[in-house]
Amino acid sequence: MSDVKKVVLAYSGGLDTSVIVKWLQETYDCEVVTFTADIGQGEEVEPARAKAEALGVKEIYIEDLREEFVRDYVYPMFRANTIYEGEYLLGTSIARPLIARRLIEIANQTGADAISHGATGKGNDQVRFELGAYALKPGVKVIAPWREWDLNSREKLMAYCDQHDIPVDFSSKKKKSPYSMDANLLHISYEGGILEDPWAEAEEDMWRWSVSPEAAPDQPTYVELTFEQGDIVAIDGVPMKPHEVLEKLNKMGGDNGIGRLDIVENRYVGMKSRGCYETPGGSIMLRAHRAIESLTLDREEAHLKDELMPKYAEVIYNGYWWSPERRMLQAAIDETQKNVSGVVRMKLYKGSAIVAGRKSDASLFDESIATFEDDAGAYDQKDAEGFIKLNALRLRIAAGKGRRQD
Amino acid sequence: MSDVKKVVLAYSGGLDTSVIVKWLQETYDCEVVTFTADIGQGEEVEPARAKAEALGVKEIYIEDLREEFVRDYVYPMFRANTIYEGEYLLGTSIARPLIARRLIEIANQTGADAISHGATGKGNDQVRFELGAYALKPGVKVIAPWREWDLNSREKLMAYCDQHDIPVDFSSKKKKSPYSMDANLLHISYEGGILEDPWAEAEEDMWRWSVSPEAAPDQPTYVELTFEQGDIVAIDGVPMKPHEVLEKLNKMGGDNGIGRLDIVENRYVGMKSRGCYETPGGSIMLRAHRAIESLTLDREEAHLKDELMPKYAEVIYNGYWWSPERRMLQAAIDETQKNVSGVVRMKLYKGSAIVAGRKSDASLFDESIATFEDDAGAYDQKDAEGFIKLNALRLRIAAGKGRRQD
Amino acid sequence: MSDVKKVVLAYSGGLDTSVIVKWLQETYDCEVVTFTADIGQGEEVEPARAKAEALGVKEIYIEDLREEFVRDYVYPMFRANTIYEGEYLLGTSIARPLIARRLIEIANQTGADAISHGATGKGNDQVRFELGAYALKPGVKVIAPWREWDLNSREKLMAYCDQHDIPVDFSSKKKKSPYSMDANLLHISYEGGILEDPWAEAEEDMWRWSVSPEAAPDQPTYVELTFEQGDIVAIDGVPMKPHEVLEKLNKMGGDNGIGRLDIVENRYVGMKSRGCYETPGGSIMLRAHRAIESLTLDREEAHLKDELMPKYAEVIYNGYWWSPERRMLQAAIDETQKNVSGVVRMKLYKGSAIVAGRKSDASLFDESIATFEDDAGAYDQKDAEGFIKLNALRLRIAAGKGRRQD
Amino acid sequence: MSDVKKVVLAYSGGLDTSVIVKWLQETYDCEVVTFTADIGQGEEVEPARAKAEALGVKEIYIEDLREEFVRDYVYPMFRANTIYEGEYLLGTSIARPLIARRLIEIANQTGADAISHGATGKGNDQVRFELGAYALKPGVKVIAPWREWDLNSREKLMAYCDQHDIPVDFSSKKKKSPYSMDANLLHISYEGGILEDPWAEAEEDMWRWSVSPEAAPDQPTYVELTFEQGDIVAIDGVPMKPHEVLEKLNKMGGDNGIGRLDIVENRYVGMKSRGCYETPGGSIMLRAHRAIESLTLDREEAHLKDELMPKYAEVIYNGYWWSPERRMLQAAIDETQKNVSGVVRMKLYKGSAIVAGRKSDASLFDESIATFEDDAGAYDQKDAEGFIKLNALRLRIAAGKGRRQD
Repeated sequence: MSDVKKVVLAYSGGLDTSVIVKWLQETYDCEVVTFTADIGQGEEVEPARAKAEALGVKEIYIEDLREEFVRDYVYPMFRANTIYEGEYLLGTSIARPLIARRLIEIANQTGADAISHGATGKGNDQVRFELGAYALKPGVKVIAPWREWDLNSREKLMAYCDQHDIPVDFSSKKKKSPYSMDANLLHISYEGGILEDPWAEAEEDMWRWSVSPEAAPDQPTYVELTFEQGDIVAIDGVPMKPHEVLEKLNKMGGDNGIGRLDIVENRYVGMKSRGCYETPGGSIMLRAHRAIESLTLDREEAHLKDELMPKYAEVIYNGYWWSPERRMLQAAIDETQKNVSGVVRMKLYKGSAIVAGRKSDASLFDESIATFEDDAGAYDQKDAEGFIKLNALRLRIAAGKGRRQD
Repeated sequence: MSDVKKVVLAYSGGLDTSVIVKWLQETYDCEVVTFTADIGQGEEVEPARAKAEALGVKEIYIEDLREEFVRDYVYPMFRANTIYEGEYLLGTSIARPLIARRLIEIANQTGADAISHGATGKGNDQVRFELGAYALKPGVKVIAPWREWDLNSREKLMAYCDQHDIPVDFSSKKKKSPYSMDANLLHISYEGGILEDPWAEAEEDMWRWSVSPEAAPDQPTYVELTFEQGDIVAIDGVPMKPHEVLEKLNKMGGDNGIGRLDIVENRYVGMKSRGCYETPGGSIMLRAHRAIESLTLDREEAHLKDELMPKYAEVIYNGYWWSPERRMLQAAIDETQKNVSGVVRMKLYKGSAIVAGRKSDASLFDESIATFEDDAGAYDQKDAEGFIKLNALRLRIAAGKGRRQD
Repeated sequence: MSDVKKVVLAYSGGLDTSVIVKWLQETYDCEVVTFTADIGQGEEVEPARAKAEALGVKEIYIEDLREEFVRDYVYPMFRANTIYEGEYLLGTSIARPLIARRLIEIANQTGADAISHGATGKGNDQVRFELGAYALKPGVKVIAPWREWDLNSREKLMAYCDQHDIPVDFSSKKKKSPYSMDANLLHISYEGGILEDPWAEAEEDMWRWSVSPEAAPDQPTYVELTFEQGDIVAIDGVPMKPHEVLEKLNKMGGDNGIGRLDIVENRYVGMKSRGCYETPGGSIMLRAHRAIESLTLDREEAHLKDELMPKYAEVIYNGYWWSPERRMLQAAIDETQKNVSGVVRMKLYKGSAIVAGRKSDASLFDESIATFEDDAGAYDQKDAEGFIKLNALRLRIAAGKGRRQD
Repeated sequence: MSDVKKVVLAYSGGLDTSVIVKWLQETYDCEVVTFTADIGQGEEVEPARAKAEALGVKEIYIEDLREEFVRDYVYPMFRANTIYEGEYLLGTSIARPLIARRLIEIANQTGADAISHGATGKGNDQVRFELGAYALKPGVKVIAPWREWDLNSREKLMAYCDQHDIPVDFSSKKKKSPYSMDANLLHISYEGGILEDPWAEAEEDMWRWSVSPEAAPDQPTYVELTFEQGDIVAIDGVPMKPHEVLEKLNKMGGDNGIGRLDIVENRYVGMKSRGCYETPGGSIMLRAHRAIESLTLDREEAHLKDELMPKYAEVIYNGYWWSPERRMLQAAIDETQKNVSGVVRMKLYKGSAIVAGRKSDASLFDESIATFEDDAGAYDQKDAEGFIKLNALRLRIAAGKGRRQD
């Protein structure tokens, strides 16, 4: 363990990663660089500075990455209408590649030879951090304390704090939640506690970002979202940066009880886990994006996108953002978004994000052809006969030769 | 046109298909056999008998196909979590193969050499009826009056009725809806009228099967759905036949404002169209089925199902139920459902069908492994390092050779 | 039919399209513009000028499109290792989009309102020409004489020639082949005649571009192909343009009996047909391209390419080159080719194109890791245990819960 | 290491696995059960008995699994036209699940708590053995000596033999090949040695199962293969069991220089490796199977098979034969094979397996429709116009609205 000289740690300022700072200094006899990012988790990041200093850290990185996070990660992902296993909007997954990238960039800048994180050995996040790190700096050493140490209970952690003069008030400001949580601008997640029983309904006071549908206003809220090339660029006509869009939609969605999710998912490491998520803005974005695509995408590219989406979601969920296959899929997805521009009107009401209208200068909807009224010859119904006859030909030949069709 | 001797018509008893009876008799100088089926559209089918008799029809088939419809078509489709273009639950599409099959069976029984239907030349239904017919009886003649005649306005139709003594009260019982509608146990659809403008929100009084979320009860309704091998077999512990399940869930869903959908979709004939749908029971079933699968399906089969689903949906939407590719996909889907058994608890509230719990004797969720608490060695966190290292190997080699990863 | 004023015809100079010139002039009372292209079919195109003039054509386009054909169509297609139904290298399919494009460009240039071609109503080529034409000029009128006229036998065609003073020597120069043939730089195809019996072996004298394997030299020929970004740019170190590469490889392949193919394929119009093809250069290119990719592509992008390829092949075979889905797939494919550079050494011998070696500066093959000898720690074999354990976890959990795995 | 009482070892009788017997006895102080199978590797298995006895083994299993191997593994795989990365016929991969299954069955029979194998920590085979073992017996202990011990050179192995009285003549009978080889009825593989340079051509004397194309007979050999439901059941009209078919075709193929392959492939553990393979019979079978499918499969099921094949190949290559996803894919594949019956005539000549004819009572080839001659109205060419028009509709609408199509 003596070969590590300097390690960059993804540092939240909380108890666990504070312990990790000390443990790394002790165990590896190395210098620790802390990196703390605001990606919209809803907590101040600046206090992490004093805590890191108190732990003897000399190189401290504290950054506001909200804009970059939404612009370069969340938005590209939403272009694909990405959902993992039919339900999950990948709120945790999509934040990891950015963290991994900054860890490596800081390692390069500070001459560190290792990175470290506070993710456990059972989850997906260790995989996502480390795949990203290895992809960006193949020779980097990765230290995952939770896989190495024996501080695998709260008691042991507290004892370690006592022994090492780590101020426990680091984490005592708010009552320890019974849930393991993770938050960023896209979502907040809950795992553990009573959620470990998939039959148990989540308790109302677990949810932090949204009111319950029952507690939401009795009047719906309408909002108009303007898309350009697949991305939302304005809300109710007001131009906004990507992270401002998401912040605004989180507020509107949360106020209307939108975006709660309770699922059992399959982790990349091979186990099922139960998780609850709040993704208020993302849930609105997904629905609205599909709506603007319904008007502006060609049928075959839309269907091909749908066929590729599960694979793309899996790639991101499993941690392969920084991979050739993600870039390959992204190239295909982005190619389709050139005309995905227009406005979608959404109705938000007690847990539901409902499409109330969509319009676009690039619309492929052709009223003159689609109409039930007289179309003045725009569409020749007689063409349908030949269309059907030739599409049926292979089936007719088969049936004619006695092949069973039912 | 002289070669048709007898034609079996999909007859609703309404004005349009009544005109078709007469038009076929006249134009083709042939005998018409009518076939009217109760597939849960919510209207009496027996009155069609007197109407057909009045039109001189001698062979009249009136059948209750509700059980067969849900058991052999809706249920198999739901095993795949089938959605077309991310939104549509295929309520119209899935009823067509059954109608096509009965048309052909009746043609075989009555010695008819042709079938006929009242679908227009612009829509998907003509394709679905006719592909099914050709697949099941390759030499059958198909007559699609809407593609042949010139009665392409309501005025012309009414004039035709006058000229041919077709009692117009056939359709005058209820005020003509401005929408083109189709209904069966799975859904009711609306097209045309103001819906031809995708920016216009559907009017509240259009919807027939569900109250609005706003008008739904202020208290949620909980319901437990029991699955066996992918199909719902009991509600709140009471065993039910498939069509009884769907009837019950339609009622519960409709009462809670669940299942409304407003989309722009891509028709197989090449145009976009705007449609509104109410699928109350189906919306609950879909969510619940995913929930029970989340507990009982292996990850890789679940992901493969998700990748195949868009293709399967397209096959059904386009009218290829009676095809080798549908059977091939069904074989794969059904293979996965052997252990999809258990109970899902759903919360229904003002437009939302929310999963509140799921349990199964065939559950693959392993609390002892998934737990955040001490797992007593069930899972060795150190395995994760090798897992990540080898999964990263191709990326590390590439990066080591200077290949760009970002 | 009176509304067509000027039509651009894909004119080969042969008997059939000469009859079409006259038939169009007569039937549509319109001006005919002829377009004749050299795409490497192996026949002079210049003689078409005098023939067209003799038929009274005033606007005559004769063009050498060989370079454009290979550079912009054949090469992009080969980047995907494209094969239709496991066998066919799409030699005919890939030439149609170029012809369609030029027909439309010439129509725009000459103010023509229609295009015409000599493809029959049973084949794929009519679809390919017309889909391309409609995609590039949606209002264009397409005239497909073979679907309209009644000159459906050689006798009727000859009679038509007699009546209209079309010099029959147009086609009498060489004995009429019993096969329907099509040729361009990528391949020559044969259909019809005895080939209509799939059990009958093609006769040796049918093949025109290659010697039989039996007649090929007893000594193998070695050749080195240099790739840059997925395309061959040099042969044996000599830089060449795309069409020169293909011409050279056709010669080498044909001399060594390479590239004959005899298949039954599924046409887009719904029937099976039997076809024989000679694709000497393409067969070598395909093998060599896979070989250079084997060294330079990442595993996951390679696998994803393989999964997408059948769809991409279908898109091209069916005539959708000019479509959003083709561009979407092309974007994904081209994204992967950035590092597909290097040299492949091929051995050509009596019908086989064999990979004898491959090397690349962008190679991802890492001898130090792959070696069976001591790797000096480049790869830690102990990582494999964790890799396997976690990949097995879902299977172990399932088996532990009594789930059948065999 | 003390908890293992009895271990079942996949024992070849060669030097390496003989060392493993001794090493297991010593290191784990446990009883070793040997299992040696004839899967067509071309060496006597009975001599393994005396060797095992000499090493003190009491429970010795020696079995002829050739029929089961081909019938239950090779044949099902060939129904999918399975090829990994466009080239490799999965000869090694497909034998592993059978070995894994027998290891586990013998462990259950003998009360063993562990299994062991001689595969290295860098390759795919360890993964395939162990995934199979874990899937079939989740609690089994797996011992992979090559990942544990330090006998990682030939010298150390020989020294170990000396120290432990392992008769070195075990392996001295034939000169040690410079290649790492693996053989079974489907193929023989070569890795290592000069093959570690992908630019180096394999030496002629490496190949063991086939003559070179140059050395093959100057006259072609014709053979007729009879398929039933996707499997070959007779050669030249003589009914044979699956393994007899493969033995016969290996002979015929090898005599004609067929089935040599030289590739760079992507291993599941993340590295590229260079391998050479001889698959004489398999290469003929693959080509012939595609040919009989070309006549008897519906187009859409054929295309869907082609799209699923790369995934199926990956599943097998990676070692997931005993998995739900393999069963799911197999269900889809087998569903398509019901009518894949008939006869294929193959021409074997100097390295090539060429389809010379195919016929089937279940053929979907319809001469009356496909013919270039008069089809007496079997196909109405006018249907093609409507078919094309509606297939073009989405492209025409898009182009009409100014959407770029090129």
